[in-house]
Amino acid sequence: MIYERFIVVYRLIGEETVALQKAKVICLEQTVEVGDDLVPNGFIRDQVVGQLVQFAAVSAGVFEAHISYAVETSAFELTQLLNVIFGNSSIKAGIRVQRLELGEGLLSRFSGPRFGVAGLRTVIGVPDKPLLCTALKPMGLSAAEIAQLAYQFALGGIDIIKDDHGLTHQPFCPFDDRIRACCDAVARANQETGRHCIYVPNVTAPVTEIRRRVELAKEAGAGGLLIAPGLTGFDMMRAIAEDESVGLPLISHPAFLGSMVISPDNGIYHAVLFGQLQRLAGADASIYPNYGGRFGFSRQECQSIVDGCLEQMGHYPPIFPTPGGGMSLENVPDMLALYREDVIFLIGGALYSRSANLVENAQYFLSLVGR
Amino acid sequence: MIYERFIVVYRLIGEETVALQKAKVICLEQTVEVGDDLVPNGFIRDQVVGQLVQFAAVSAGVFEAHISYAVETSAFELTQLLNVIFGNSSIKAGIRVQRLELGEGLLSRFSGPRFGVAGLRTVIGVPDKPLLCTALKPMGLSAAEIAQLAYQFALGGIDIIKDDHGLTHQPFCPFDDRIRACCDAVARANQETGRHCIYVPNVTAPVTEIRRRVELAKEAGAGGLLIAPGLTGFDMMRAIAEDESVGLPLISHPAFLGSMVISPDNGIYHAVLFGQLQRLAGADASIYPNYGGRFGFSRQECQSIVDGCLEQMGHYPPIFPTPGGGMSLENVPDMLALYREDVIFLIGGALYSRSANLVENAQYFLSLVGR
Repeated sequence: MIYERFIVVYRLIGEETVALQKAKVICLEQTVEVGDDLVPNGFIRDQVVGQLVQFAAVSAGVFEAHISYAVETSAFELTQLLNVIFGNSSIKAGIRVQRLELGEGLLSRFSGPRFGVAGLRTVIGVPDKPLLCTALKPMGLSAAEIAQLAYQFALGGIDIIKDDHGLTHQPFCPFDDRIRACCDAVARANQETGRHCIYVPNVTAPVTEIRRRVELAKEAGAGGLLIAPGLTGFDMMRAIAEDESVGLPLISHPAFLGSMVISPDNGIYHAVLFGQLQRLAGADASIYPNYGGRFGFSRQECQSIVDGCLEQMGHYPPIFPTPGGGMSLENVPDMLALYREDVIFLIGGALYSRSANLVENAQYFLSLVGR
Repeated sequence: MIYERFIVVYRLIGEETVALQKAKVICLEQTVEVGDDLVPNGFIRDQVVGQLVQFAAVSAGVFEAHISYAVETSAFELTQLLNVIFGNSSIKAGIRVQRLELGEGLLSRFSGPRFGVAGLRTVIGVPDKPLLCTALKPMGLSAAEIAQLAYQFALGGIDIIKDDHGLTHQPFCPFDDRIRACCDAVARANQETGRHCIYVPNVTAPVTEIRRRVELAKEAGAGGLLIAPGLTGFDMMRAIAEDESVGLPLISHPAFLGSMVISPDNGIYHAVLFGQLQRLAGADASIYPNYGGRFGFSRQECQSIVDGCLEQMGHYPPIFPTPGGGMSLENVPDMLALYREDVIFLIGGALYSRSANLVENAQYFLSLVGR
């Protein structure tokens, strides 16, 4: 039989002969991991080895190679799919994963985002315009103090209130206490406002513990879950997304993933890492650093993430790009021009520092996005 | 109470004022994630925020900052410890994790390597000199064909025979079939040779499946397990290492981790990524690309990995640096000078290509290391 194939587009640095050689080596490295002289003829050479299907210059010294792989090489496992895409080649200089073209046959083996943009809007009851999200911090506050912050932000109209991603189960703020207190606080605020703000606890945790935390969060009334796939592995997020007994929106955090985008000539392009891979692994919203904030992403890189989150990808719904940081009165017009409606703005420090009245601060940021 | 603290050494790029500012920002970014003006005085400022305890120039435009964190910020979870070490700062340019000084109080919260150098030598019955390892490939062979390779390498005296890390559960070579066939083949060869060669299947798999594979491997008689923490998350390796019911040596594979070492000014230094973190997560042997092979690691970087694997680290035993690739007759003297005795040489293609007689090829490589 002839296997269906998926395509990975690699961006390669070097003179044409060097880049072409890199492309040919990737075909072997990502599959059979032997030299061409050791590849058996027949099935393995014809189907298992990656195939260079397109090679073109992008600019001086930069090329794009489209390499196709048999879907069966992935064993239909997210861990092994990531390995075929970039396992060993991640260790070689001048190779970047630029785009994935996975095809519906392969995509359908993974559930993808359970909610997506439309589903999350329904949960929160806000059919259009940007959503607002904030993070509960600083680390070191008690569960009661964190819950009091959540209450005020919910009163002020913030749609999504998440744990800061560093809050897990520290002795000074145990997970169970925080989650119960924050769920109660947000529920109380919702009763007063008539809104449907959700509290999204951070469930990033050891594999031996994460299931218990997810269940506790669900039972306590959490409206979604925050997870950092760089810390847990992408497949942990997928497993939670696909678990019918959980059934909560997932928000992905970029912690520990930075090395993959920090070098322009290596790693995984922003659109793939914060767009395509997030959807593949079931995130409904993908947090990343906004341009103009304290991280170095460019406006163009952020645009690519928007594309990766929203563009057609098999049967998967679009998900929310969720830029964090750098939101101030001055740059709102440009942010709205780039992000338009289907975006979650994650506002951190500015929401705390504008004034001592957190309810008013929240209302102010709502007004900035025309709500 | 005053919390115990651990230290992360960061290598920072920039003029002195820029680098110093980066260091101060890391103290906040990795803990409270708010600006200094929003840090509450008292417990949070005094203990939760990272503390810059040393700052010194390394060379022109390069500085090292020693930053201490309260051990409680890690919640004694490997996922959160990695987050404190490098979560958000991984997304900022010019910051590299250069060394960890975790202290026995924190290290003792994780079991560390179960076997280490001495334990693995006991299992294999080779008390000194380098060990030899090879990988079963190419992907596309059937379980029976893979097992036949394993049989020949075991007959030839290879100590550790592992799956290629891309072999998982492909339709053309299902996991269960391969593991049973290879375990039988290696056991048969051991009966003939009187040696204690171990077969090490690749258990890198989805979180929903990995437990079953580990159990099947154990039951079938595998002598160790191969896992790629870049694909599963480091904490999955830790969980398997700490599981009393498993109790097998773990060999770690670098797939998908390359972005962390590909840029010299960013990411995580080789000694940390392939040494310290591997031990923290319970690996008994750490595979990485050898210098002079088809990957770009320098001899000095490989030396740093040796140090990270072997140097004092609390109560943890030293583990085997396991350089892969690039082993030929010509460079054996230099490799022995660098790696000395406590090393596993992973020989891939050269073992297949030297001649059609795999048993003789294995014996040849044994002779190269004086065995």
